[in-house]
Amino acid sequence: MDAVDAGDSVGGGSRGAAAGGERTEAAVRVRVFAAQVLRGQGQVTFLPNAATGTLFTAALFAAGWEYGVYGLVGTAVGTATARLLGVDRGRVSTGLEGFNACLTALCFAVFLGAAHLSTALLAVAGCVVVTVVTAAVVRVLGVWGLPSLTLPYCLLATAVTIAAPGFGRLWHTGQGVAALPLPASGTTSVEAGELARGFLAGFAQIFFMPQWYVGALLLLGFLVAGPRSAAVACLGNAAGIATAWALGAPAARIADGTMGYNAVLVALALCGVFLPARTATLTYALVGAAAATALGPAVSALFAPSGGHAFTWPFVLTTFVFLAAAKSFPRLTGSGDGD
Amino acid sequence: MDAVDAGDSVGGGSRGAAAGGERTEAAVRVRVFAAQVLRGQGQVTFLPNAATGTLFTAALFAAGWEYGVYGLVGTAVGTATARLLGVDRGRVSTGLEGFNACLTALCFAVFLGAAHLSTALLAVAGCVVVTVVTAAVVRVLGVWGLPSLTLPYCLLATAVTIAAPGFGRLWHTGQGVAALPLPASGTTSVEAGELARGFLAGFAQIFFMPQWYVGALLLLGFLVAGPRSAAVACLGNAAGIATAWALGAPAARIADGTMGYNAVLVALALCGVFLPARTATLTYALVGAAAATALGPAVSALFAPSGGHAFTWPFVLTTFVFLAAAKSFPRLTGSGDGD
Amino acid sequence: MDAVDAGDSVGGGSRGAAAGGERTEAAVRVRVFAAQVLRGQGQVTFLPNAATGTLFTAALFAAGWEYGVYGLVGTAVGTATARLLGVDRGRVSTGLEGFNACLTALCFAVFLGAAHLSTALLAVAGCVVVTVVTAAVVRVLGVWGLPSLTLPYCLLATAVTIAAPGFGRLWHTGQGVAALPLPASGTTSVEAGELARGFLAGFAQIFFMPQWYVGALLLLGFLVAGPRSAAVACLGNAAGIATAWALGAPAARIADGTMGYNAVLVALALCGVFLPARTATLTYALVGAAAATALGPAVSALFAPSGGHAFTWPFVLTTFVFLAAAKSFPRLTGSGDGD
Repeated sequence: MDAVDAGDSVGGGSRGAAAGGERTEAAVRVRVFAAQVLRGQGQVTFLPNAATGTLFTAALFAAGWEYGVYGLVGTAVGTATARLLGVDRGRVSTGLEGFNACLTALCFAVFLGAAHLSTALLAVAGCVVVTVVTAAVVRVLGVWGLPSLTLPYCLLATAVTIAAPGFGRLWHTGQGVAALPLPASGTTSVEAGELARGFLAGFAQIFFMPQWYVGALLLLGFLVAGPRSAAVACLGNAAGIATAWALGAPAARIADGTMGYNAVLVALALCGVFLPARTATLTYALVGAAAATALGPAVSALFAPSGGHAFTWPFVLTTFVFLAAAKSFPRLTGSGDGD
Repeated sequence: MDAVDAGDSVGGGSRGAAAGGERTEAAVRVRVFAAQVLRGQGQVTFLPNAATGTLFTAALFAAGWEYGVYGLVGTAVGTATARLLGVDRGRVSTGLEGFNACLTALCFAVFLGAAHLSTALLAVAGCVVVTVVTAAVVRVLGVWGLPSLTLPYCLLATAVTIAAPGFGRLWHTGQGVAALPLPASGTTSVEAGELARGFLAGFAQIFFMPQWYVGALLLLGFLVAGPRSAAVACLGNAAGIATAWALGAPAARIADGTMGYNAVLVALALCGVFLPARTATLTYALVGAAAATALGPAVSALFAPSGGHAFTWPFVLTTFVFLAAAKSFPRLTGSGDGD
Repeated sequence: MDAVDAGDSVGGGSRGAAAGGERTEAAVRVRVFAAQVLRGQGQVTFLPNAATGTLFTAALFAAGWEYGVYGLVGTAVGTATARLLGVDRGRVSTGLEGFNACLTALCFAVFLGAAHLSTALLAVAGCVVVTVVTAAVVRVLGVWGLPSLTLPYCLLATAVTIAAPGFGRLWHTGQGVAALPLPASGTTSVEAGELARGFLAGFAQIFFMPQWYVGALLLLGFLVAGPRSAAVACLGNAAGIATAWALGAPAARIADGTMGYNAVLVALALCGVFLPARTATLTYALVGAAAATALGPAVSALFAPSGGHAFTWPFVLTTFVFLAAAKSFPRLTGSGDGD
């Protein structure tokens, strides 16, 4: 993760100006916290950048004001819980304790209904618990030097969405969602307009949203953080769509962005975030993006009979494999690490 | 685990009294082994206490003499196998090699039919194999300093109960049990009598039993071991039931104890056994108990399409997460361990 | 793994004869690569022996020329990818980078249709990706000193076969394969002829083939590598069949070799390959072979609702448990290792 120290320059340097008083100090604290939360929004795509986080938040509000509120409050609750429990300052200030909570809260809003009070209360509880899950995942994966990615959110969101139909006060439709997976049907020929919409929606689906304009705002957030991230994200998205088309995915799945979001995240993780950005790792990242796209329907089919969803499991699993493997490929990273 | 050395004082100090002869020595060995087995019964709830184990055994006999026999013989076979294979003495003498075997044998009795010879033979084989699984789990989890809990039993019991319908000589009903999970139905309003029965049955369900009087005997076993354990167990149980009620679990699931047994075990593990007993850890333990209760229907739904059961998976998974995370929360344990 | 250095004696000793020229050197390189590939074929059953690999290849051609080509090209692509990525020479030269690719390619041929161009292209891509998965698995399991076995192939084959129905260009039948598991039906009394066919087919099923003569050729490959391996493989197979019969498996499953192939691999792994060959480990290996056989229908039932298959998961899981546990049993290995 870049910029571990980007965080608390304001707070850390509370220069104790003689007269400022408590009010100023409180204002400084609020600004520090707000910056941590906005970086947390950006960290959903590995970008600890408050401007990016602001654009991401705007994108959520564009999808629906409830989603904006769920995402923002979720990140705030997660970040606050981590501070309360005394989690390492560096993690908190770079937003690493916020993004899993953001996705958890949003996921509950989308799958359990944003308008129910039960969903709102459960989202707050979920953002507290996901902080505990994050600490556990960080410790467990630390043995291999692997990052926790969105695994904490995937674990919690999978547990809650599968459990929800078993609880009458959480599940308001009364309908079951568990079903055996069916073979793909529908046309596989994609029109140019669908392709363009699907490309933008691929960014939006990272936050469960299918609208192209939400994706466009998110892409703007990438550009603000830097052209390289934006380029890698676009290439990953294109690799995902191309793979899906080549394998014969239904056109509808390409057009709604389902086939791109895991690929975007894998490409970012493997080229520039956890591995250096170079030609060899870009190739590696695009192979990973293709693999995650192919893995998508497998994860969906594994969870379907229990009523679960793929979320970002394909991204998480693929990235773990490609990162753990990378150290054994000296020609890839340019190092001679054979350990 | 408390009292690692509680074990072999009798055997270890076989004071070599000149005349006693082989008969006395054999009697001493039998008494040592019996104490190990009774502590194994108590270890199902982390209590390496022979008196508690005796009451737990009585509770199983109260549920049905077959269950008493399966549980006791299971613990004996597991303990004997561990001794035969040369497992570390400390583990054997505190009953740590018995409780997974106890639960394995009981589980087979309940799900495959206690009266069949095939079940009895399979239970003996299962208690041998679960000792191997225990050694593997201890080694694998040792990397993170995590205890094995009832994971060995969960792994073996899940494998065998899901495999059983595929074997004609194990499966006597001829009926399949695999089914897609359905949304909760039935009333969610619980009457006072149901609540009281459910509270006691919550203890009994640790051993798969739904009877309130079995739970009452188990609670007596807790009290014998010490008031603190009993209090934590009761609070965990109450937290589980309250969570289930708040989320809208069917009243029938509360009344039969299904919503309490994982919560009891989580609370014990996180407050007094693997973390010190203090106010902060009690709060943490009750959050864990609530989380395990919410996780319960998710585990059931994950295994339902394959014909499996939740067993104590919710307890095991929740406790692993909360224990692995605890070291990152200095305000919780009062230590500054950041490693 | 025996004989880590068996590999590159030809290539390593390219004695630089003054005149030989590039043509000779190229021929030497081809021979080195061919030997690596043949050892890769043999490594499916832990035998880094080119003669054994040749007989295994012949067995695949006997089952169908497409299968021979898929297996051989698969091993070649996997081995070449590992060389290209700079994987450790010792692993490449003993065939450890070939056998997972061999099984991956074969699996695609069997489950997606060998005659489709899509299957052939996907198999090449799969053999590249399985090399990445292998590197990841080696690193992850290295923490416990566990070997990777066929886990990389199991992971990739499970993902692709479950995902395939979701992709129109991969799935040509249009039929779903996901189904709830049913209880065993059909007779459990096995005739002598079925038993003999099932015994030989047990070897063939390691490569997904049900023909007894394919198994006979494979057994010949074992004998070429040494009588001890062949004897352990036969005993494992017999233990698997005996367990299946005792538990009441359908006779048809015994006759087609389904109940023997995991047992063969477990027995080999636990007696002679990863643990020393002695009486105690042979007993341990046969208990493992029986356990893997009982586990088989559980794995099938777990994957059935998603449309997946058991592959060699029972072997992999059972062997991990028995190997991880072995270090805690000083009476088994004769060592006092308690770490």
